[in-house]
Amino acid sequence: MDQRPLIALAIGDAAGIGPELVAKVLAEPELPDADILVVGDPRVFGTLPASVPAPDLPRLDPGAPRWPDGTAAILDLAHHDAATPIGRASRQGGAFALANFDAALALAAAGVVDAVAFAPFNKEAMRLAEPRYVDEIAHVQRRLDADVEGAEFNVLDEVWNARVTSHVPLAEVAGLITGERIGRAIRLTDATMRGAGHEAPRIAVAALNPHAGDGGNFGTEEIEVIGPAVEAARAEGYAVAGPIPSDTVYVRALKGEFDAVLTMYHDQGQVAVKLIGFDRGVTLIGGFPFPITTPAHGTAYDIAGRGVASTGAMRRALQLAHRLVLHATPTVPPREPRLARLAQALDGALVPASA
Amino acid sequence: MDQRPLIALAIGDAAGIGPELVAKVLAEPELPDADILVVGDPRVFGTLPASVPAPDLPRLDPGAPRWPDGTAAILDLAHHDAATPIGRASRQGGAFALANFDAALALAAAGVVDAVAFAPFNKEAMRLAEPRYVDEIAHVQRRLDADVEGAEFNVLDEVWNARVTSHVPLAEVAGLITGERIGRAIRLTDATMRGAGHEAPRIAVAALNPHAGDGGNFGTEEIEVIGPAVEAARAEGYAVAGPIPSDTVYVRALKGEFDAVLTMYHDQGQVAVKLIGFDRGVTLIGGFPFPITTPAHGTAYDIAGRGVASTGAMRRALQLAHRLVLHATPTVPPREPRLARLAQALDGALVPASA
Repeated sequence: MDQRPLIALAIGDAAGIGPELVAKVLAEPELPDADILVVGDPRVFGTLPASVPAPDLPRLDPGAPRWPDGTAAILDLAHHDAATPIGRASRQGGAFALANFDAALALAAAGVVDAVAFAPFNKEAMRLAEPRYVDEIAHVQRRLDADVEGAEFNVLDEVWNARVTSHVPLAEVAGLITGERIGRAIRLTDATMRGAGHEAPRIAVAALNPHAGDGGNFGTEEIEVIGPAVEAARAEGYAVAGPIPSDTVYVRALKGEFDAVLTMYHDQGQVAVKLIGFDRGVTLIGGFPFPITTPAHGTAYDIAGRGVASTGAMRRALQLAHRLVLHATPTVPPREPRLARLAQALDGALVPASA
Repeated sequence: MDQRPLIALAIGDAAGIGPELVAKVLAEPELPDADILVVGDPRVFGTLPASVPAPDLPRLDPGAPRWPDGTAAILDLAHHDAATPIGRASRQGGAFALANFDAALALAAAGVVDAVAFAPFNKEAMRLAEPRYVDEIAHVQRRLDADVEGAEFNVLDEVWNARVTSHVPLAEVAGLITGERIGRAIRLTDATMRGAGHEAPRIAVAALNPHAGDGGNFGTEEIEVIGPAVEAARAEGYAVAGPIPSDTVYVRALKGEFDAVLTMYHDQGQVAVKLIGFDRGVTLIGGFPFPITTPAHGTAYDIAGRGVASTGAMRRALQLAHRLVLHATPTVPPREPRLARLAQALDGALVPASA
């Protein structure tokens, strides 16, 4: 039993639905067969409505960490600010999320935990706490001092979504579409999906222009860049097809023709993903040495503290992290020696990122 | 009974599912309360499978047009090429579609019919028949010699979609987003939807950039162009909201918050529209003196001649045309004097467009 995967679950923004999601999901029978180390501050559960009982989580003592009976424990960072205004973006909520996420990342980087799942962030709150915050990928890269290029995947039961470009102005997208970027995204999508148990995933590559450029009438990137990149990847043995017009590629994927869609820009996939499964979608931050997952939805400030948030995506985020861990590490190393490194791993993790 | 709306129904591409759609839809009880003049060649019904009986349509004699008993007749252009290869894009199929569409447009322009509905075209086939063919809107503009700017709407039961830009390369989209274009699209959407019976339609204006530009981090068009245009339209009394991130705007519209979404570019709306109702969506070509409607789906060459095509969108295209006619012209002028102008209206309509 002490060789089950150990997943860090960061509570996220104290002002959003994160505390509620964590409290609820830990009580669900569909939890993956893993141990879960909640990272945050149990005091946030005090803000929950009566309909959501606070979870009874044994504290892990960083000085002498010993896993308790049961499958969940909490690492108490004692960092909750009782003045946090619930239900809106705030510096306090952002700082809380940053700190528990950073601690979870530090634990994973040190091999104490096998994966990180986190309850939602809000970019506005993150920037109130750390003005130079751009997005999760950039933050992870900086905190891990990683020279790998991370990539965000949106995962629904039916179909995965990967992107060649993400958080850039639409005006810059076409200039960023290169054969090299497309090839890299195909390889990373294939590798990541294999890591989640998909054998030989069938990847549809979306076109950039309306009607896939309509034979060059509405843009030439399909002819000059995307088509050749797809051909090159196919020659390397990847199961890719495309470029496929973006308004039919998801319809075809949902009918079972593809396992993943590689889109050229953020909203090309996001429009579809949110329509297909707003409450179910999981975001996977791939490309790093351990899986990082989170619900695709946000902090949902408008319903925070009401006890009505759906745990579907949070549960799936844990399940996906679990699946990726087991595939990469069929025999997870024993827990206790890893926990012994906990205090050392946290050392420095809570230094303000702006320092 | 001779003051019912009269709708021209062009058979479209003889090689696609058009003949089947026309044959089937005319036999359906949900037909709008209108007279329907099929425009094309009854010989195409000879290619239908046994499961789809050819409709028994009286021919309208252009020399002495008299409406027959019943609600449907055919204007026989005798232009079907028996050598048309069924189930793929061909010059013959494109030429057939062009000719019956042009005839229908000529009848509407002359006031003989009140609206045009047409079974699907295929751009490749259209270009095989007429190399300079760009899209339906440009074609209608040229044939009607109209100095109005047409606009394409995608109509689902739940929500309409209009666009600021359409068949242009993605790289050019940002440069085409101006306050003037957005304002014009809002006004046309509002007017067209009122014409279809929507009082004070609530129009959501989509953002251009991911996360609506994220406060300027991922693009500034929301701050500099789209936001001010929405404010200006609101000040004029339009029920507009936005800019709203494109990955949530459709989710909100489907929940009933908006009646229409104005998107900035083709695929932003098309991804959603096709996912929501691939078999139901109707395309309305608005901005011209009479309604022009067609199924949002295409010629479906892959299932042509098999008798399995769904008539949902074709029926809705007729119903929408009917609704628009009745709203614009509550008392439709009598039929017989209009029919008397038929031969004159057709004069010149069939001249090759390249002449």
